[in-house]
Amino acid sequence: MLLSLKNIAKIIDAQLIGDKFKKINGISTLEDSNSDQITFAVSEKYKEPLMNSCAGAIIVDETLKKYCKTNVLVVKDVYLAYSILSHKFKLTQNISHFRFGHQLSFPETTIADSCIIGKGVRIGINSTIGANCVIEDNVSIGSYSMIESNVTIQKGCQIGDYCVISPGAVIGSEGFGNARNIEKKWNTIAHLGVVLIGNKVSIGANTTIDRGTILDTEIHDGVKIDNLIHLAHNVIIGEDTAIAAKTGVAGSTVIGKRCMIGGAVGIVGHLKITDDVVINATSTVNRDITKPGVYTGFVPLMLHSEWKKVGVWLTKLDKIATFMKIKLKNIR
Amino acid sequence: MLLSLKNIAKIIDAQLIGDKFKKINGISTLEDSNSDQITFAVSEKYKEPLMNSCAGAIIVDETLKKYCKTNVLVVKDVYLAYSILSHKFKLTQNISHFRFGHQLSFPETTIADSCIIGKGVRIGINSTIGANCVIEDNVSIGSYSMIESNVTIQKGCQIGDYCVISPGAVIGSEGFGNARNIEKKWNTIAHLGVVLIGNKVSIGANTTIDRGTILDTEIHDGVKIDNLIHLAHNVIIGEDTAIAAKTGVAGSTVIGKRCMIGGAVGIVGHLKITDDVVINATSTVNRDITKPGVYTGFVPLMLHSEWKKVGVWLTKLDKIATFMKIKLKNIR
Amino acid sequence: MLLSLKNIAKIIDAQLIGDKFKKINGISTLEDSNSDQITFAVSEKYKEPLMNSCAGAIIVDETLKKYCKTNVLVVKDVYLAYSILSHKFKLTQNISHFRFGHQLSFPETTIADSCIIGKGVRIGINSTIGANCVIEDNVSIGSYSMIESNVTIQKGCQIGDYCVISPGAVIGSEGFGNARNIEKKWNTIAHLGVVLIGNKVSIGANTTIDRGTILDTEIHDGVKIDNLIHLAHNVIIGEDTAIAAKTGVAGSTVIGKRCMIGGAVGIVGHLKITDDVVINATSTVNRDITKPGVYTGFVPLMLHSEWKKVGVWLTKLDKIATFMKIKLKNIR
Repeated sequence: MLLSLKNIAKIIDAQLIGDKFKKINGISTLEDSNSDQITFAVSEKYKEPLMNSCAGAIIVDETLKKYCKTNVLVVKDVYLAYSILSHKFKLTQNISHFRFGHQLSFPETTIADSCIIGKGVRIGINSTIGANCVIEDNVSIGSYSMIESNVTIQKGCQIGDYCVISPGAVIGSEGFGNARNIEKKWNTIAHLGVVLIGNKVSIGANTTIDRGTILDTEIHDGVKIDNLIHLAHNVIIGEDTAIAAKTGVAGSTVIGKRCMIGGAVGIVGHLKITDDVVINATSTVNRDITKPGVYTGFVPLMLHSEWKKVGVWLTKLDKIATFMKIKLKNIR
Repeated sequence: MLLSLKNIAKIIDAQLIGDKFKKINGISTLEDSNSDQITFAVSEKYKEPLMNSCAGAIIVDETLKKYCKTNVLVVKDVYLAYSILSHKFKLTQNISHFRFGHQLSFPETTIADSCIIGKGVRIGINSTIGANCVIEDNVSIGSYSMIESNVTIQKGCQIGDYCVISPGAVIGSEGFGNARNIEKKWNTIAHLGVVLIGNKVSIGANTTIDRGTILDTEIHDGVKIDNLIHLAHNVIIGEDTAIAAKTGVAGSTVIGKRCMIGGAVGIVGHLKITDDVVINATSTVNRDITKPGVYTGFVPLMLHSEWKKVGVWLTKLDKIATFMKIKLKNIR
Repeated sequence: MLLSLKNIAKIIDAQLIGDKFKKINGISTLEDSNSDQITFAVSEKYKEPLMNSCAGAIIVDETLKKYCKTNVLVVKDVYLAYSILSHKFKLTQNISHFRFGHQLSFPETTIADSCIIGKGVRIGINSTIGANCVIEDNVSIGSYSMIESNVTIQKGCQIGDYCVISPGAVIGSEGFGNARNIEKKWNTIAHLGVVLIGNKVSIGANTTIDRGTILDTEIHDGVKIDNLIHLAHNVIIGEDTAIAAKTGVAGSTVIGKRCMIGGAVGIVGHLKITDDVVINATSTVNRDITKPGVYTGFVPLMLHSEWKKVGVWLTKLDKIATFMKIKLKNIR
């Protein structure tokens, strides 16, 4: 897909300052864009990368245009404009109308019946694709990997060697990114990245891993992921980290190496968790973790009759402190 | 399915007061029943709607029969009787023995290989059905909608225009309703409602949305739902609300418009949440929310060594208050 | 698969004390092993069962070999050795290359199109298999059971009579067991048990139930399990217990009869929960429950502005107690 800046300005209702014939072939980040790509910035805090960006064009609002040294598209709502433009660069979903066994041949690979294998799929030696899987266009799967039944691997995702993907897992689903317009209605963002999975990775049953927004979601070598886990767009999981069932990691959070994350943990977005961190089951991680160690946060189980009495005071801890004239500085 | 009251009385072991030849064609609620339907009431608090119901017959216990102005079926355990009767009115699951491409034709619709499409399915123009989907009997899908791979849409559910349903999602699964008999064994309730999904709705990968018990589960226009979410029977989600991954909403809860619900939130059943409410990730919602605002409830993450010490006191907050002679009225 | 102890010693790099020609045909527990099986023990606390084990051989480290009265394999890291050996006894995944309807016939059973049915599968009368299911080798399904669409039942699992398995469920997925080697890299353990499901059991949409590590995972008669639930390896759920959506139960936990577990509950591993226990939604169960009753543990919902103030004190409860000179013994 090639779009002129004139066209793009029309699509996102922008004022264009610069070369209207300039052709753009994709969206990237401020830092990663090349001169054929367009990027965007939403606040003053991106001033430095804005000034240094090599992008062919930048979408900003009135307040940020002064920092741009290239073609500029000025809009009212940058994030909304980006969400609209993103769909233009999305690879169209080509639904394959052929089933494996009839048209394709992967030597030394076992492919079960009723799989749908897209165009441009590459599969290494001694790998296995289970029954009723859907492997979309341009997916690559390494050698000695096992994709079990009813798995969906979406467009362009890459799986390494010696991986196991359990039944019902979905790799490369659309990320949950939406921009709100002035009427508070949501505009979905087309996610242009993929999921990159290293070697010796296990993915559990019915787990979902979303593709990246612009860059990719990354699961590094040796990572073990249990069932019913959600890893959002642009999450990065470091080598040899293990994550137990039902945990969710929100967008753009980066988890280090050799971490052990318990079951049903909730990790909010845009955090950094260092190497060798252990998080106990059902905890909420709502801040960066910069030191290795064992972390926990949940309410111990009580008889419901006791919990009701405790709960009343739990929501008033600050008022208890005030009443008792306890100050934070005194108890540290 | 048509059943006489004589027959129904036999099925649920009831004493019939009224017309034994009266024919019944379905179950509905006290308020919504017409004269060809049967309904039920389980407690004195339904006295008013009981007295005003237009139902053709009502199942009650001995204490409530005095309020009924129509045919009455008196049983010992009303909920159990209803659970038994519900299965008689369930549409039988007709498993389709034909695959798309061979017998059907939807002009301007793209249907991938290996889909199973039931009888009476309607699909609008420019919609796409991904590989290995199962679209059961009498489902309707609007125009410009995309159903991705491995999705199951069960009997009679309705999807609007411009919707996206991600891989592995299940729409219209049976609700989790069970009545206990005197031996404390469960009798499942057949769920007779469907799932109604409006326009411009996104549903994430491996998310499940249950059908309604008697009335329907409703997802209104513009709602965005992330991966691995559970929406139970009769949940209603208002326009332009967004719900992040791994959240669960229990039965019959109604959520307003333009809400933003974070990831891994647990919302208990039978609640009302007003418009424009924001709930932060991993919170538990255990009460109605009547005012717009931002709400939270979880334990901040601690080092496990600290959490162990804190936990001891956390379960004894009421006793601390008593010991310190703090009264609730003094700290408000 | 038959392996001599000489061979096994080579595979796990062990010092063999005993009969190198002894043939082993499987792995079992200390208590359940017969003289053709091998077992292992990791700590002094298994001294008694070690001394009484009927196993044909035992893997231990240097410190435990003195308790063994049979053939011994001495290694440095017992759990790691077991994880390596486990893969030798795993039944190889035979991917079926035939689809139902063409080669098979189950009288009085309805099997939808596009199902994949493995070798040695047994199905009782009046059962139904929905579209796009994968039923792997040697699975058995009783009579009057309904397996809905897109379900995966893995090798050797057993389903009873009058069961309903909702779309997208995965029964018999690999358990999440991994042994760490000296470089902190994970070695997966091959799970050799199956899932045994009794009669009149309901399993919800997209729920996952892992197979047992050595012995089996067990779901007893009359159990009702909602959507998106995870039951880990070797979990046992007693008769007529009901579990609401999004709950997770970690490995080897045993739950009694007639329990009612709310939605999104997290239950950690290796616990015992007695009969007739009720656990409210979103609670964490981090200890055994020995008495029937109603249990709860979560933070009540607050305005976020209040929660921020409360949270500061919540993590310092022990320090408040110290400051106020409150002692635990005084407030009990």
